[in-house]
Amino acid sequence: MTETTEQQVTAAQSAALRLANVDAAERDAALSAIADAIRDNSDAILAANEEDVAAAEEMLAEGEYTQALVDRLKLDEGKLESIAEMVESVAEQDDPLGETLAARELDEDLELYKVAVPIGVVGTIFESRPDALVQIAALALKSGNAVILKGGSEASESNRVLYETIVEATGDLPVGWATLIEAHEEVDALLEMDDKVDLVMPRGSSEFVSYIQDNTQIPVLGHTEGVCHVYVDEAADLEMAGDVAFDAKVQYPAVCNAVETLLVNDAVADEFLPEMVARYREAGVTLRGDAATRDVVDVDPATDDDWETEYGDLELSIKVVDDVYEAVDHANTFGSKHTESIVTEDADTAETFMTGIDAASVFHNASTRFADGYRYGLGAEVGISTGKIHARGPVGLEGLTTYKYYLEGDGQLVATYAGDDALPFTHREFDGEWRPGHLSDE
Amino acid sequence: MTETTEQQVTAAQSAALRLANVDAAERDAALSAIADAIRDNSDAILAANEEDVAAAEEMLAEGEYTQALVDRLKLDEGKLESIAEMVESVAEQDDPLGETLAARELDEDLELYKVAVPIGVVGTIFESRPDALVQIAALALKSGNAVILKGGSEASESNRVLYETIVEATGDLPVGWATLIEAHEEVDALLEMDDKVDLVMPRGSSEFVSYIQDNTQIPVLGHTEGVCHVYVDEAADLEMAGDVAFDAKVQYPAVCNAVETLLVNDAVADEFLPEMVARYREAGVTLRGDAATRDVVDVDPATDDDWETEYGDLELSIKVVDDVYEAVDHANTFGSKHTESIVTEDADTAETFMTGIDAASVFHNASTRFADGYRYGLGAEVGISTGKIHARGPVGLEGLTTYKYYLEGDGQLVATYAGDDALPFTHREFDGEWRPGHLSDE
Repeated sequence: MTETTEQQVTAAQSAALRLANVDAAERDAALSAIADAIRDNSDAILAANEEDVAAAEEMLAEGEYTQALVDRLKLDEGKLESIAEMVESVAEQDDPLGETLAARELDEDLELYKVAVPIGVVGTIFESRPDALVQIAALALKSGNAVILKGGSEASESNRVLYETIVEATGDLPVGWATLIEAHEEVDALLEMDDKVDLVMPRGSSEFVSYIQDNTQIPVLGHTEGVCHVYVDEAADLEMAGDVAFDAKVQYPAVCNAVETLLVNDAVADEFLPEMVARYREAGVTLRGDAATRDVVDVDPATDDDWETEYGDLELSIKVVDDVYEAVDHANTFGSKHTESIVTEDADTAETFMTGIDAASVFHNASTRFADGYRYGLGAEVGISTGKIHARGPVGLEGLTTYKYYLEGDGQLVATYAGDDALPFTHREFDGEWRPGHLSDE
Repeated sequence: MTETTEQQVTAAQSAALRLANVDAAERDAALSAIADAIRDNSDAILAANEEDVAAAEEMLAEGEYTQALVDRLKLDEGKLESIAEMVESVAEQDDPLGETLAARELDEDLELYKVAVPIGVVGTIFESRPDALVQIAALALKSGNAVILKGGSEASESNRVLYETIVEATGDLPVGWATLIEAHEEVDALLEMDDKVDLVMPRGSSEFVSYIQDNTQIPVLGHTEGVCHVYVDEAADLEMAGDVAFDAKVQYPAVCNAVETLLVNDAVADEFLPEMVARYREAGVTLRGDAATRDVVDVDPATDDDWETEYGDLELSIKVVDDVYEAVDHANTFGSKHTESIVTEDADTAETFMTGIDAASVFHNASTRFADGYRYGLGAEVGISTGKIHARGPVGLEGLTTYKYYLEGDGQLVATYAGDDALPFTHREFDGEWRPGHLSDE
């Protein structure tokens, strides 16, 4: 490719302006075409993937890669079919664009509409699974955004063929709506272009997301860490508490919404902890605890480092707290504002915990593992945000939209509404969809 | 003050957690108390303000300050009363917090609520008008946010007394909910604290806002520039076009929503421009034009610099374009994504312009000067955003909120909804307000 990254991103910017006005039917048809092309092109995709896998297996033999990475990288006919179906399911989602979010009459024949529109150019940097490229491209297209795609180098052959398949299948869309970049220098160049790129969505380790945040002026949507807590209150149903605490750690420990620290009210520690610890041990969980925990059960000591560690594995720290306030304070101090859960039968205590916690998701009597776009019913998940600005928690397609104000008038001047003889505004909300020029029709 | 900025911001963070749970009645009562205290303390406030004004007048004599700055700085009994009334009007706004934005049943007795909550700690850096401090503090309090206030050094005496008045009047609120910082080094320290400060709102020149954006990892809400356009289409009512173009420039040229470049369709340039130029000249507007404009009217030549300049004064550049597409392209290339307006009687052309323009506000047959939170009916205006993330265009109190997901269950585990025997989710939207623990009441 002889184009510079700047030329590519400038082309993406032009494409974004045109893509914003491609209607839902055409975007959905393009998504169907992508799904079909992935099926039709499966031989070439799988051949490219074999090259990636062979290279990764060499790295595995040299101890550079893990077996898990090689497994995630590997495609087969079944996985390709799932990818094609995922693209079709994105097409089936409600159109996130064009909705009139508010309509307000400012004065007679002066009508303001707030309408959902795409953000523009979204830069994405993601991990080694080749299905990530297709998923991100599909979500961007559905929401009318031009997208810059940078995948992991382990998947470069697969990504290139998948990208070419997508571009060829969407020849009717504005050229440049999807752009693959491959070199690290191109990422650095991308991160500099805060005048052309509207949002960056990194996926990967928390170190990686932090690195991106520290190296760009572009707004970043992502989550850095998931240090989640389950608090077992003195008024908990202890059988429920045991099940929730077990599910939150053991059901899938590698993910960001798994629990990392169990907080137990002092009043129930003696009754709750021995059985819980036995159950965790049986599942292979390594446990550490503070002094009060170790008075009740025999576990290794926890240090201050433990409280802020995302183990991402079958490891857990335990702390005994005096009351719900200490639990809230601990979670707010050491948590990552991702997901926190209380188990209690006392509604007032639940309210104290839920309103006191500063996190994207706060649960009452449910496992932290529910914090997920699919489980929340958001449809396709764009990502999870631990930031508070724009989108928080699991983010659906809505997170890839912004809004635009359209004002329809018939020649109104601000001078009429200013000064001593100022006309008042009516500021009346009404139900209505923006229809350009409808005032002149009447 | 012996506290470091970090200690102050840490205190603000604690205050924010508590302030988030202060109910609307208490926040509104605190706002009333602020209004009363400003009235009661007017002698001390005006005395401090006299010191600022005297110092500013010395700088004026030395040619360092403008008369306009001195005028903006100056308070009197009448202005103080307006400030007190402004605080009362903020109290009268609808509560931006606690609203259930969405409620969804995930399964029986498993209910997800998306609820509006404060952002947390907001850092604000603003210009010399002392009423800015009071307005920003009032908006932050109304929306439950702790606020760090840094005003212009010209207003330091006024700001200090106003700040003390506010803090004394709100002794029942969590200590540290409002913090005044005064030194430039404190601003630099604040901008470093991206782990403690959730949002920065700078007000001031576009250079100043850009400086802040370039020097912090904290999300910034602000507007850098207002390079706005009015496009006079070939299908325009030319009398309306003349009035709109005149209002957009002359009614108040110093503000960001004033027009800077007039785009005129080639087909109407001969008819429209001579009269328009005469009208502008009569109002003292300095004009520049491209070659095609200068074929019709005698104005100075415009350079490429003119197209991207926010004059903020009685100056205007004029360009003749072939069609609406060239108008859209020019505005998207040189505009600042703030506000653009088309004057036309043709609905299709209006649609092409309005959907093709990438700006926060796009108007049809109305002056660009309508782009303003008050005129839009947003109530109190927090600021205007030219960014696309979180809030766009004029921003009301809603821009100082985010949301939190509350999940109410009765012990649900993700294991139940995963694997071969996975239960399905119901994902049914319903009308309802979050009420903690209501499932256990039933």
